[in-house]
Amino acid sequence: MQSTITSIDHYFSTRKRTEKFCQPLSIEDYTPQVVEHASPMKWQLGHTTWFFETFLLTKYLDGYECFDQQFSYLFNSYYNNVGKRIARNNRGVLTRPSVERVYEYRHYVDRHIELLFSQDVDIELEELLKTGIYHEEQHQELMYTDLKLMFYHHPFKTTYKEGGSLLRDENTSPAEWITIKEGVYEIGHQGDDFCYDNELGRHKVYLHEFAISNNYVTNEEFIAFINDGGYEKFDYWLDEGWAWVQKNEITQPLYWEEINGIWHEFTYGGDQVINPKGILAHINFYEADAFARWKGMRLPTEFEWEIAAKQFQWGKRWEWTNSAYLPYPGFKTAEGALGEYNGKFMINQMVLRGGSVATSPNHSRITYRNFFHPHFRWQYTGIRLAK
Amino acid sequence: MQSTITSIDHYFSTRKRTEKFCQPLSIEDYTPQVVEHASPMKWQLGHTTWFFETFLLTKYLDGYECFDQQFSYLFNSYYNNVGKRIARNNRGVLTRPSVERVYEYRHYVDRHIELLFSQDVDIELEELLKTGIYHEEQHQELMYTDLKLMFYHHPFKTTYKEGGSLLRDENTSPAEWITIKEGVYEIGHQGDDFCYDNELGRHKVYLHEFAISNNYVTNEEFIAFINDGGYEKFDYWLDEGWAWVQKNEITQPLYWEEINGIWHEFTYGGDQVINPKGILAHINFYEADAFARWKGMRLPTEFEWEIAAKQFQWGKRWEWTNSAYLPYPGFKTAEGALGEYNGKFMINQMVLRGGSVATSPNHSRITYRNFFHPHFRWQYTGIRLAK
Amino acid sequence: MQSTITSIDHYFSTRKRTEKFCQPLSIEDYTPQVVEHASPMKWQLGHTTWFFETFLLTKYLDGYECFDQQFSYLFNSYYNNVGKRIARNNRGVLTRPSVERVYEYRHYVDRHIELLFSQDVDIELEELLKTGIYHEEQHQELMYTDLKLMFYHHPFKTTYKEGGSLLRDENTSPAEWITIKEGVYEIGHQGDDFCYDNELGRHKVYLHEFAISNNYVTNEEFIAFINDGGYEKFDYWLDEGWAWVQKNEITQPLYWEEINGIWHEFTYGGDQVINPKGILAHINFYEADAFARWKGMRLPTEFEWEIAAKQFQWGKRWEWTNSAYLPYPGFKTAEGALGEYNGKFMINQMVLRGGSVATSPNHSRITYRNFFHPHFRWQYTGIRLAK
Amino acid sequence: MQSTITSIDHYFSTRKRTEKFCQPLSIEDYTPQVVEHASPMKWQLGHTTWFFETFLLTKYLDGYECFDQQFSYLFNSYYNNVGKRIARNNRGVLTRPSVERVYEYRHYVDRHIELLFSQDVDIELEELLKTGIYHEEQHQELMYTDLKLMFYHHPFKTTYKEGGSLLRDENTSPAEWITIKEGVYEIGHQGDDFCYDNELGRHKVYLHEFAISNNYVTNEEFIAFINDGGYEKFDYWLDEGWAWVQKNEITQPLYWEEINGIWHEFTYGGDQVINPKGILAHINFYEADAFARWKGMRLPTEFEWEIAAKQFQWGKRWEWTNSAYLPYPGFKTAEGALGEYNGKFMINQMVLRGGSVATSPNHSRITYRNFFHPHFRWQYTGIRLAK
Repeated sequence: MQSTITSIDHYFSTRKRTEKFCQPLSIEDYTPQVVEHASPMKWQLGHTTWFFETFLLTKYLDGYECFDQQFSYLFNSYYNNVGKRIARNNRGVLTRPSVERVYEYRHYVDRHIELLFSQDVDIELEELLKTGIYHEEQHQELMYTDLKLMFYHHPFKTTYKEGGSLLRDENTSPAEWITIKEGVYEIGHQGDDFCYDNELGRHKVYLHEFAISNNYVTNEEFIAFINDGGYEKFDYWLDEGWAWVQKNEITQPLYWEEINGIWHEFTYGGDQVINPKGILAHINFYEADAFARWKGMRLPTEFEWEIAAKQFQWGKRWEWTNSAYLPYPGFKTAEGALGEYNGKFMINQMVLRGGSVATSPNHSRITYRNFFHPHFRWQYTGIRLAK
Repeated sequence: MQSTITSIDHYFSTRKRTEKFCQPLSIEDYTPQVVEHASPMKWQLGHTTWFFETFLLTKYLDGYECFDQQFSYLFNSYYNNVGKRIARNNRGVLTRPSVERVYEYRHYVDRHIELLFSQDVDIELEELLKTGIYHEEQHQELMYTDLKLMFYHHPFKTTYKEGGSLLRDENTSPAEWITIKEGVYEIGHQGDDFCYDNELGRHKVYLHEFAISNNYVTNEEFIAFINDGGYEKFDYWLDEGWAWVQKNEITQPLYWEEINGIWHEFTYGGDQVINPKGILAHINFYEADAFARWKGMRLPTEFEWEIAAKQFQWGKRWEWTNSAYLPYPGFKTAEGALGEYNGKFMINQMVLRGGSVATSPNHSRITYRNFFHPHFRWQYTGIRLAK
Repeated sequence: MQSTITSIDHYFSTRKRTEKFCQPLSIEDYTPQVVEHASPMKWQLGHTTWFFETFLLTKYLDGYECFDQQFSYLFNSYYNNVGKRIARNNRGVLTRPSVERVYEYRHYVDRHIELLFSQDVDIELEELLKTGIYHEEQHQELMYTDLKLMFYHHPFKTTYKEGGSLLRDENTSPAEWITIKEGVYEIGHQGDDFCYDNELGRHKVYLHEFAISNNYVTNEEFIAFINDGGYEKFDYWLDEGWAWVQKNEITQPLYWEEINGIWHEFTYGGDQVINPKGILAHINFYEADAFARWKGMRLPTEFEWEIAAKQFQWGKRWEWTNSAYLPYPGFKTAEGALGEYNGKFMINQMVLRGGSVATSPNHSRITYRNFFHPHFRWQYTGIRLAK
Repeated sequence: MQSTITSIDHYFSTRKRTEKFCQPLSIEDYTPQVVEHASPMKWQLGHTTWFFETFLLTKYLDGYECFDQQFSYLFNSYYNNVGKRIARNNRGVLTRPSVERVYEYRHYVDRHIELLFSQDVDIELEELLKTGIYHEEQHQELMYTDLKLMFYHHPFKTTYKEGGSLLRDENTSPAEWITIKEGVYEIGHQGDDFCYDNELGRHKVYLHEFAISNNYVTNEEFIAFINDGGYEKFDYWLDEGWAWVQKNEITQPLYWEEINGIWHEFTYGGDQVINPKGILAHINFYEADAFARWKGMRLPTEFEWEIAAKQFQWGKRWEWTNSAYLPYPGFKTAEGALGEYNGKFMINQMVLRGGSVATSPNHSRITYRNFFHPHFRWQYTGIRLAK
């Protein structure tokens, strides 16, 4: 079938959104890598493009010539099946190719994708295009959070652009508890819409009765935890969490700083006074779990969250659940390199549900399973309590 | 009520079993700590005794005088509530107290426990005694595995005693698959028998139909995995597992060595030729998971295991499940220091079910939840496949 | 007195030489820091400028306004007396200021230096200007070697510019031994020309008779060492050197690679076939010492070198001596921040004498004492034998 | 010639002195290794014995049978020429051989040495015996200091024996400056008495006039340095020294502790109040150098020390000099394994002269060159000032 207007349009709007985000950057901003888990902008611009070239153009467009053979090595992330790749912590040395040439690469691939999809394409190719688009949307979120972290590491905390505004999200409803009755529920994706392999295998789970908050935890609630010695009493913490607090001398969420007795947070516009009613962000699983225990409550499981989510507003923070990232019953890894996408990370990570202010539009859904190691804080992570 | 014969008898038989195990050791064997996660024998002798002194004698025996005030610091393991404690990786410097004095400590506490339980004791105290006994039984298993590891680290692989025999466990039934039907099942401990807090909160789970092997994976099955390049192909491995293999250049299970083309394993009696029909031991979660994927199968969840276990023989190996160690619904942490026992480790660990040749008699039960980080191999861990 | 034509001319020719060297670079090349001991180009451009601003303009030019207050923090290297400074291994995060702004900084300072020296200046100020010029010349050498190292770290070993030529230096005289008679000799700088504090304190030393080669060791001589198992036999190595070889699995000099049985070296123009007659470069002290022992000879002391140097050609390689970097009798540290220049590094470093192809013109002299830790290889270091 | 009474007597008195030192130890004290640079007592007892077995008995006593073939691997220290050896940081796992068996090894070797020297022996063998004796004397000093460090690492700072007395050495003469005139002097060993290879090659040096103190720096002098902010001002410190202070948060010499405002030092008898007039000990080169700079003075060179030493009392502390450990002109490494004794450590270490309270009787002499890395403090190191 010929590509629907929607897919190829979605492709181009996604590609442009990425580049628009980078517009205020100087050439120098594209290259450094400040921590291993955050990648340079240049690398992400190249990597998302490499994905389309590798999984679509080289396989389906007759006579396609690779833009540059070396890019396959430089811009592969973790796909062992696609050959050797640059070490994850070595992405900051990519002075070459230049930023300019990476943009040329993007536009070269764009033109060929357009060509490929001007012909009749089968459904499988259509699906691959969607996967590539969603992949780039995931990287848009990472670019947003990785860049913030890079600015923060600069000795003078540089900013994205003048007047970048404070994150002012607040809960919009009065707080209340939503109760879900005990019983068998269905979990996982259904229907023809796009989803990742880790959401598939719709299956039944048994839930015992529980209550879940319709609101996120706010900054002022977390300040109360801090003021009550939350970071100083091991009773609230998992053993590993307490070790993390002590080794790193943690006393507040990432990006927070108390200046003359007033809490500030680092934003895209620099340090700003914290909004007490604002929704808490940038805490890791250990902190989320400790906060919940301090409250005498707990975090929901991912299944509880999925069943209750129709009844509350979500999408401003990725929410830590108390579920480890594991396969659903009947989970099947896709064949080939794309099969590495999700399954091989199913160990030592916790599931997050929801979405965040940095998430691309239309990219979040109720069955989406995000996952991170419990110590990471650079995403827009938040807390929703259960009991 | 007066202590039942059973409990105080159980106390003394357990205490004696510990000391009998240590009988062949030289004084020098009691002190070294070869890795952080394995403790010296002397420390374990003291720590199990400290448990009874701290949680029973100092609280319930009028006029009890501590054997030595410093021991509380030296022999505390991770109970933050009971004061400062020696760093976990620093237990190998305990030249003093002498081995002799630690035995005096044990017998001093034994006499006072006997005195305490010669009186009428309430049910709570009875429960504490049981907890202490089970705690010491857990350490008997650790002593068995920690000592083996220490012998193995010696440049010449010393042995426990001459003629210590090879581990010759074999599966005793013909291999078959046990099938469990889809439906709601109950999980967790019930009844009055002793159990740990993490087994409580009996609750319902929904299981989809599955099949599980009645037998353990054998040495020769694992050798086939090795011979087929199991340690060389990343496709079988979780991403973290593959990193572990590469960083540590792993090519076989712990204690295995190929000598002139013949596989040997290090035992309490030294290196011995591997029994092909023997039950595989000393693999970590990554290896268990990779083996299962190579077979086109998977590891069972802890819930599948618990439901199916009535239908197969178990107890020779701790079996890795594909369940993360997390609280059951309604999990409650006990008040006080004993509350630290299990809950605070519920992150980044995988559940093991069953029991092993090193497990104390009467210490394993179908609802017991053991847990370790996925990279550990020094326990008698094994594999049971599911599909 | 009014500044002599010479000094201010020397200033401007030095400043321009620095910028000319940077001309072929892309913006991206200025920022990364690949190892702790090599600094980014941008930082070096700023740091050499900061030196003139801090030690001359802010002190001697009335009404001078700093270009940017933050630069003092960013571009200080190790002068504790001049306030806080950025950590040495954190120089690669300086995305801001932009390259463009650093050049503005340079030119702003240039204009003010011109202004300052258009007036009558006293001899002290003249000396400070010279120190700043020599300081920048030292950094020209570092920029040359640091940039080469950065290019080498790129996954595809990028190059400075197309056709950058191979290092083709060869010895120009027939090999012979120069013999120096036993006796008392004078060491150290004399006269009014510029020198560093560590060369001062001209003093007497007693030398026993020795012979020193008039030539450098060549590539083919070092290949003979390699072919004879030089990197495999501990007998030739200092204990620390042998540990360095084994830990890092060293089998050749830095930048060397054997491709299809032919030795290549990485140059500013990429990998090129080694010239056997070329003068060896990029070996560390351990390698120089091991080579000498393999030859049955030794490295000269810095005193032997200084006395003999009038009789041989030098200046193409920094030459490792067997002298530790220590103060001359009567060594005095200068007052104030400039006093930190040399004295505080007088531990655990070895003296190098001579100069190299990367050394700025007129920057080397017979009494000059360079010094590095014995494991460094990224300078153009070479070997001259003694016996 | 037949062995002189003196040599074989010296052998036995040395061997007995070692064992007498160990008499108060418990079996447990013999095994642990608390830091890499300090070896267990058991290892030192075995290693000193292995030296005699390897370099004398196996080569010169017909029909000699090694006590145990494995001991060669276990008790070799760094002699690459004598085969493989246990890693230096792995000496703490030697639970076996037992302490008892190591003593049997000692006495077995003693009996055979007696047998060997009951015959006519040539001068070379006599020299080897002396080397072995001096080697054991060196280890007596190390045992003394290593054991103190082990006791100190115990959580409760165990002690060697009750009532072990405080180190009460004081300077015995009024302070004065000894002045040495400028000129040519001779350095290095001469005569037939025993010395190490690094003392040989008697040669001339030129010394400029200098003054050196006849006394050691005392505890109260060093307390004045501390009270004046000595550990807080970078101006006094070498760059590496300052990094060491900051990284390790050093605020006093090793073994010192301020308890309720009063300085104590840890001794073989436990913590004791410091004697202000006592001679300072347990400082490293960085501290010695910083102290001297604070005083406006400097440390002597090893040559200055050797020439002046006839005029002052020495032997209570090893004295840091400002000389790097380098070969004398004409230094020759001995052939074979014994050639590894000294030469291969001639990098990154500083020379100490004198001797200490832990040095064996008759083991110190005016030409003796001790050497340590500049950060070590566990020896009885002290300061003598020069200017």
